Amino acid sequence: MTCRSDDLLRALGETADAVAAYLDRAITENAPLSARLAAAMRHAALAGGKRLRPFLLIESAALFGVSRDQALPAAAALECVHCYSLVHDDLPAMDDDDLRRGQPTVHRAFDEATAILAGDALLTLAFDILAREETSPSPAIRIALVAGLARASGGTGMVGGQMLDLAAEGRFESGARPALAAAEIERLQAMKTGALLDFACAGGALLGAASPEQRRCLGIYSHAVGRAFQIADDLLDVEGDAGTVGKRVGKDAAAGKATLIDSLGIEGARTELARLVAEAEKVLEGFGSAATLLAEAARFVAERRN
Amino acid sequence: MTCRSDDLLRALGETADAVAAYLDRAITENAPLSARLAAAMRHAALAGGKRLRPFLLIESAALFGVSRDQALPAAAALECVHCYSLVHDDLPAMDDDDLRRGQPTVHRAFDEATAILAGDALLTLAFDILAREETSPSPAIRIALVAGLARASGGTGMVGGQMLDLAAEGRFESGARPALAAAEIERLQAMKTGALLDFACAGGALLGAASPEQRRCLGIYSHAVGRAFQIADDLLDVEGDAGTVGKRVGKDAAAGKATLIDSLGIEGARTELARLVAEAEKVLEGFGSAATLLAEAARFVAERRN
Repeated sequence: MTCRSDDLLRALGETADAVAAYLDRAITENAPLSARLAAAMRHAALAGGKRLRPFLLIESAALFGVSRDQALPAAAALECVHCYSLVHDDLPAMDDDDLRRGQPTVHRAFDEATAILAGDALLTLAFDILAREETSPSPAIRIALVAGLARASGGTGMVGGQMLDLAAEGRFESGARPALAAAEIERLQAMKTGALLDFACAGGALLGAASPEQRRCLGIYSHAVGRAFQIADDLLDVEGDAGTVGKRVGKDAAAGKATLIDSLGIEGARTELARLVAEAEKVLEGFGSAATLLAEAARFVAERRN
Repeated sequence: MTCRSDDLLRALGETADAVAAYLDRAITENAPLSARLAAAMRHAALAGGKRLRPFLLIESAALFGVSRDQALPAAAALECVHCYSLVHDDLPAMDDDDLRRGQPTVHRAFDEATAILAGDALLTLAFDILAREETSPSPAIRIALVAGLARASGGTGMVGGQMLDLAAEGRFESGARPALAAAEIERLQAMKTGALLDFACAGGALLGAASPEQRRCLGIYSHAVGRAFQIADDLLDVEGDAGTVGKRVGKDAAAGKATLIDSLGIEGARTELARLVAEAEKVLEGFGSAATLLAEAARFVAERRN
């Protein structure tokens, strides 16, 4: 167990380094004329983070014999979208956060205008990268990646989920806040967080020319990981402390926001996490030992402390 | 002359209607779960505007026998990028504008968080549309459109230009503002405004499988139109009134910002506009009568009053 977990941490670290190196080069090429824009993009994209999404994409592709180097551009594009969303979510008009991964947020380290533009530039860079021949020699695979990432991150995916999340905080209501049912919270989270995680595995499957049955299995896996990710996040918000978590905690309670913990309870949340990990492991069985790191990643997500 | 101008206005109107209908449908599909997000995207994308960029794309494609319906998705995607950039540029942290096309800006009609997310969703929708089979049956053409639009709108294009523009206002300096030379202003404007206009013509050429020589001619045309557009804009900022222009005027002077008028003078600017129109007309000659509307559009851009 310790041994397998060490393998995962080593693989996560290697992915993080490779993604950071790729993004560093891409940002240098992308913003050669404005040093401030490039610095803000670097601050957003290179200041650590677990790189879970690119890791899932690279490991999903690896199931089908695609090397890390081959999967790296698509993985880096996905990480660009994740990083842009954090920059915009942290803005004063949104969550108004000063701290991200233990560092000042982009609008605190620079200014709001720069943060808005750096986010816009990172989102655009994601599609720029996906269009490159190095992402895949096949234009059909590249355009399928563009379609998938756009759907996962737009109005029906991440941005739509963020909008529903703000509504759930009562941001757009002057009267009573609408109380969300558990099913509505799950839909919101599936859009806000789950869609990009789903794309990670679907993107790897696209690069690897997976069969429909293999895509279905990876879809079940990514759904389980996405739900586990959210429940673990909600638990951290209730139980964690800012020093360990690296960002402000107790935000949901302060915002009076419904979370999955309200409906599951803390013990129920832990039981559900164990069930999701078991589901993820089971659906990976058909891939044999090639899926060891993906199974370990599901446990890591469910047990994470930051 | 009057007759040709009437043809242009009719064609612009038809394009505007077709683009609006396409975007209306695309937004409905894209944001089905958040009525507020969809309403803000509609406010940004359907509240008028000349639709010059989609018009140039459709007319460039038409030179090669591509019908308006065939070129419409790519044209609408381009307009999504233009509209998102206006929403973000109008934000309080950027240009802080209350009025756009004679209507309240998105953050005034809704709120800042909604405006940020609606802009993000429109940018994402642009790439979603480009990835669709209806944009082109050829994945290679679609991915070339994605690459072109990403380059035109990211750090080396529109967003990079906007960043340089904010720097030129002295937004990031506590001391003396850097005075821009005419060449620097031109580079800034070529990125901020010119890149999307260049993409309009290059996108039409891509859809029409233009020859390298034809692409070169359209590139000269779009450069001339872009420069004319900017000079006309600077003249309006100096000479126009908000009622006619539909947005705040005198902004550049108020911001102490250098414009091309500073180096050209008002009469010099008019002379340069005439030269650019002549250049645009000349380079279109090889396309014969198919290019009549594009030539008329160059005159329209140079002479526009709003």
